[in-house]
Amino acid sequence: MPLRCSELGERGLIKRLTEILGGVENDDCALLEVGEGYIVATTDMLHRQTDFPAQASPWQIGWMSVAVNLSDVAAMGALPLGLLMAAGIPTEMEVEQVEEIFRGMDCCARACNTRIIGGDTDAHQELTLNGTALGTVERDRVLRRRGARPGDLLCTTGALGGAGAGLELLLERDWRPGQPGEDLARRLLEPQPRLKEGRALALSGAATAMMDNSDGLALSLSDLAEAGKTGFVVRQESLPRAAGLEAWPEEESLDLMLFSGGDFELLFTLCPEKLAEARQACPFTAIGYVVEEGLWLEDRGARRLLPTRGFEHMRSRPGS
Amino acid sequence: MPLRCSELGERGLIKRLTEILGGVENDDCALLEVGEGYIVATTDMLHRQTDFPAQASPWQIGWMSVAVNLSDVAAMGALPLGLLMAAGIPTEMEVEQVEEIFRGMDCCARACNTRIIGGDTDAHQELTLNGTALGTVERDRVLRRRGARPGDLLCTTGALGGAGAGLELLLERDWRPGQPGEDLARRLLEPQPRLKEGRALALSGAATAMMDNSDGLALSLSDLAEAGKTGFVVRQESLPRAAGLEAWPEEESLDLMLFSGGDFELLFTLCPEKLAEARQACPFTAIGYVVEEGLWLEDRGARRLLPTRGFEHMRSRPGS
Repeated sequence: MPLRCSELGERGLIKRLTEILGGVENDDCALLEVGEGYIVATTDMLHRQTDFPAQASPWQIGWMSVAVNLSDVAAMGALPLGLLMAAGIPTEMEVEQVEEIFRGMDCCARACNTRIIGGDTDAHQELTLNGTALGTVERDRVLRRRGARPGDLLCTTGALGGAGAGLELLLERDWRPGQPGEDLARRLLEPQPRLKEGRALALSGAATAMMDNSDGLALSLSDLAEAGKTGFVVRQESLPRAAGLEAWPEEESLDLMLFSGGDFELLFTLCPEKLAEARQACPFTAIGYVVEEGLWLEDRGARRLLPTRGFEHMRSRPGS
Repeated sequence: MPLRCSELGERGLIKRLTEILGGVENDDCALLEVGEGYIVATTDMLHRQTDFPAQASPWQIGWMSVAVNLSDVAAMGALPLGLLMAAGIPTEMEVEQVEEIFRGMDCCARACNTRIIGGDTDAHQELTLNGTALGTVERDRVLRRRGARPGDLLCTTGALGGAGAGLELLLERDWRPGQPGEDLARRLLEPQPRLKEGRALALSGAATAMMDNSDGLALSLSDLAEAGKTGFVVRQESLPRAAGLEAWPEEESLDLMLFSGGDFELLFTLCPEKLAEARQACPFTAIGYVVEEGLWLEDRGARRLLPTRGFEHMRSRPGS
C-alpha cells in the first residue's frame, strides 16, 4: 500500500520535502542576504473551507490573508517591504465580494505601513488566497527560532486564547455578528500582526529567539525548542489570559491558552540581564524560562509534561 | 443582478482590484527599492485541473510551477535569489507523488542556479501550487514592459508555437509519453526560463522593454503596447517557427505562433543602434518593430490588424 499524506501528517510531510530541497531553515521567514542586510520572505496558502470560519466576511478574509503573512515578518524583527497576493477565485463569485476581499487585504497592509505590490488571479473552484510578504532586517538584529539559551526568560506579547475562544463561539455556538462575543470573534477574524513589537524587540538587542504563536503556544514552543535545541518551562499562573476567557471553565480556559491557535502573538526569549531594555521596547508578559530540554508546565512548583498538540493541517483525525 | 467574475473576465477583474490597491505596476515582477538595487518579486498560482495537462507527470508539475515564476524574473533582466513554494495537497495523495513534484521543483530551481528557500503546505481538495520567485537587478539595468520607442526593433528569444502545438497534441490527440511528438510535449511541460538571455540583454544596455510571452505573442504584445503606449508591427515571414510545427497546416501553424501560450520566451524591444551589442548578448530573432499605435501583422508589405486573443483565465466561453 502506498503511503498517503493523511497517514504522514503535515509535519511529517514537510520533513521529507525539506530533505528533497536540500534543507530549508525552519524560521517564520526565509532569509536572503541582500546588500548589507537580510530580505525576509514568507508565503501562506489559505482556503475558504479549511482556513476561514463560515462567519468570516469577505473583508475579514482579505484582512486575515495579509495578517498571517505579516505576522511572520514581525516574528523575524523585520520591517515589511510589501506583499504579493495571489487569488484563485470561483468564476461565479460576485465581483463585489472579491472587491471586499481585496479591500480587507489593502486595509491590513496599510494598517501595517506596507502595501500590496503585486499578485496573480485565476479561476478556482474553492476560493484560495496565497499571500507572500517581504521584509528587511539588519543582519545583527534579525531574530530567529534558534538562539535561546538555558536561563533565558520565555515571554509573549499580548494575551492568549482569545482567538481560540472566538473559534469555539463560531463553531460550537454558531456565533453571528451583533451577538455577544464580538471581541473574541474579532480576535480570531482580524488578527493584528505584532510588527511594532517585533521590530522594537529586535532593535532592543534583548531578545535571543522569536516566532509567532500561530499554531498555539504548545506547538510553537515545540518548534522553538527543536530549533534552539533547548526546553521550556511554562508557569501556568503567569499565562496572560485573553479578556473574555473568564466565561470559560478554568480547565477549558487553560486549554485555550495552551493549545488553540490564531492569536498571532510573538513568543520570544530574553536575556535576563536585558530585561529593562526589553521592557522599554514593548509590553509583554514573562511566562516561563528556557531549560536544557523538555516542555514543562509548572503549577505552583509542580512540573508536568506539556503535550505538544495544536493545529496541524492534513492529519486525519481518529474517528473522522 | 450582481455582476459575476465570469462576466468581467480575468483582465477586467484585475483592473478593478488594482484600483482598490491604489495601483500596481503591470510588469512581470513587482519592484522594490532595496539598497543600491531592486528586488523583483512575482507570484503565480497553479491548479491541477486548469493549469497542468492530464499527461503532466508529478515531476513536470513541479518543474512547471517553478519555471513560470523564474520566467518572470528573467523578463526583468534580474538574477534569481530564491523561491517560496506553497502547496495545497489532497490528503489522500501518495507521499511519493508529492515528493516527485518537489523533486521537479528542486531540479528546475537548481538548473536555473537558484534554490527553494521556503514555503508552506496545507491540505486542499485540488492540488494547488503557488510559487513566488525573488530576484535582484541593478536600477539602471532593469527591463520593464514600458520603455519601447517607435522605431525600436521587436524581438523574441527562441521559437514560437512549440508549447501550443504540444498542448494540441495532448488535448486533441491524447498524446502519451513515448509517442511521437515528445519534443513538443516537453516544450509545453518543461518550459525553460530564459534567465541567461534576460540577464545578458539587461546588461547589454540594448533592450528598451521586455516581458515574457506566457499568454501567447498577441496578448503579450497587447500588454507591451498598453504599458509602453506604443503599437507594434509583426512581420509574418520573420516569425521563428518552433521545430515540429511543419507538421501543421500553414494557417494553423501561424495561429499557434501568434495566439498560443506557454512558450515562456522573452519578447523585447531593441534600440536599433545597439543591435550589435544585443547580438553579442544572446541569440534572438527580430520579428517586427515599434510604431506609434495599433497591433499589426505585416505579410509581404500588406498590413492587417492582429487580434489580441490568447489565454485568459476565468472568462466564460461562448457556448460553454
